[in-house]
Amino acid sequence: MSAPERSPLDRFSFNHATAKFWDQREAVEACARTGSGIGLWREPVQEMGLEASAKLVKDAGVTVTSLCRGGFFTDPTRAAIEENKKAIDEAAVLGAPTLVLVSGGIPEDGTIDTAREGVEEALAELAPYAGERGVTLAIEPLHPMFASDRCVVATIGEALDLAAPHPAEQVGVVVDTYHIWWDPQVWQGIARAAAEGRIASFQLADWITPLPAGVLTGRGQLGDGCIDLKRYQETVDATGFDGPIEVELFNDALWARPGAEVFEETRAAFRRVLA
Amino acid sequence: MSAPERSPLDRFSFNHATAKFWDQREAVEACARTGSGIGLWREPVQEMGLEASAKLVKDAGVTVTSLCRGGFFTDPTRAAIEENKKAIDEAAVLGAPTLVLVSGGIPEDGTIDTAREGVEEALAELAPYAGERGVTLAIEPLHPMFASDRCVVATIGEALDLAAPHPAEQVGVVVDTYHIWWDPQVWQGIARAAAEGRIASFQLADWITPLPAGVLTGRGQLGDGCIDLKRYQETVDATGFDGPIEVELFNDALWARPGAEVFEETRAAFRRVLA
Repeated sequence: MSAPERSPLDRFSFNHATAKFWDQREAVEACARTGSGIGLWREPVQEMGLEASAKLVKDAGVTVTSLCRGGFFTDPTRAAIEENKKAIDEAAVLGAPTLVLVSGGIPEDGTIDTAREGVEEALAELAPYAGERGVTLAIEPLHPMFASDRCVVATIGEALDLAAPHPAEQVGVVVDTYHIWWDPQVWQGIARAAAEGRIASFQLADWITPLPAGVLTGRGQLGDGCIDLKRYQETVDATGFDGPIEVELFNDALWARPGAEVFEETRAAFRRVLA
Repeated sequence: MSAPERSPLDRFSFNHATAKFWDQREAVEACARTGSGIGLWREPVQEMGLEASAKLVKDAGVTVTSLCRGGFFTDPTRAAIEENKKAIDEAAVLGAPTLVLVSGGIPEDGTIDTAREGVEEALAELAPYAGERGVTLAIEPLHPMFASDRCVVATIGEALDLAAPHPAEQVGVVVDTYHIWWDPQVWQGIARAAAEGRIASFQLADWITPLPAGVLTGRGQLGDGCIDLKRYQETVDATGFDGPIEVELFNDALWARPGAEVFEETRAAFRRVLA
């Protein structure tokens, strides 16, 4: 375990969902100009075309830090598996080291326990497939308010238990402050994730109060909420992690604004909270 | 550990907040008619008067299963301590074995960690006070979506850690399905709570999807959501618990309807899901 080599300020990656309706090309160009990485999303990639998107980031010299999003295993399983294989292939073409997985919610005829078993089974099939293509699957625990409809995986500990049967280069976890900050075991969870070599993605977003009406799109700009983001960065870095730090904000107010403006504001907020 | 002596169907207790605007006297009379217990709230008790409320339940022969609500320790501390002592005194007069505690959120100048320390300190002062009056403080973990503004205690495990320094007759925990159902460690948490003799209150409410706009008042009627309530009752009972099973639903739609109707519907739902 060595001290991080790169300052956190040099490790900013802009997740495209933060400016969801911003043209992918413009987003990549902004990242190129500022030495930022980018987290890509499958839908805009498909819109531009997979090969064209891969060429775009390569020509711009922009590092793709993750591809969002695989998962939703608790939908009819066979179709979900095929869709995830496709997403893994796309990540490989784009040079994304990581495919972020949101597990899916509780199926009509199931319980949270059967849904979790479904995630285990899907991972067993997908992990070797991802490994062969040099892609790490990153299980993302979502905040428990999404446990019924989006993600039955609710804590880092649970994500690590799901990852455990697989090699770390095949299955890791996402450390996203927005989803885990409330967890009384969060620091132990991060320490365990690092010890097991499974921090596949590190993402920042803040928690604002009160929650907006649409809880899916209420993630706060860095510094606007109650999460001690600097402590998270220091804790994660202290484990020896010096990978990209992505900012992913689902926020209606941000989405309504010009992407370039949101990019600059987000980058400035990142530099402010991690200074 | 003995098998439960009373059928769950005979252990229904109606938390007054389920029909928040229903007259306390009518609620108590409905409970008397049906052999139900009642969970009282401080505000309606104060409105009727503490002694008059105590006489009401005593004359009606209705068991008070809990008093809601103490806590909010992360408000300015000294005032919160005094207010909680008053609530303990009220519980003793009403014959409520349990005062439910919601810890409070994150103070303006604090973090979730300092807030949790504040809860520890408040408990240290209040636990002996409660013990002298025969009242058990019941720490209620709330769903993590309330962690910033209402309750920094988010899991049974955390509530048990907070209770641990105190005798079980002084500090226990609330097992409320609505708040804990998503927790991957929930079954271990219930087993531990039982082993430590700390199940001070058992409450049912269901989780419905999508969450309503006001997340505070979106608890589902029993059977309307995704929680396997029967499994919770069986699991809790299997530990030897045979205390009251309270139904507490914060739900705008229920609150808009006549209390007597809500009472009957809730009692019927209780009998249906636990049959």
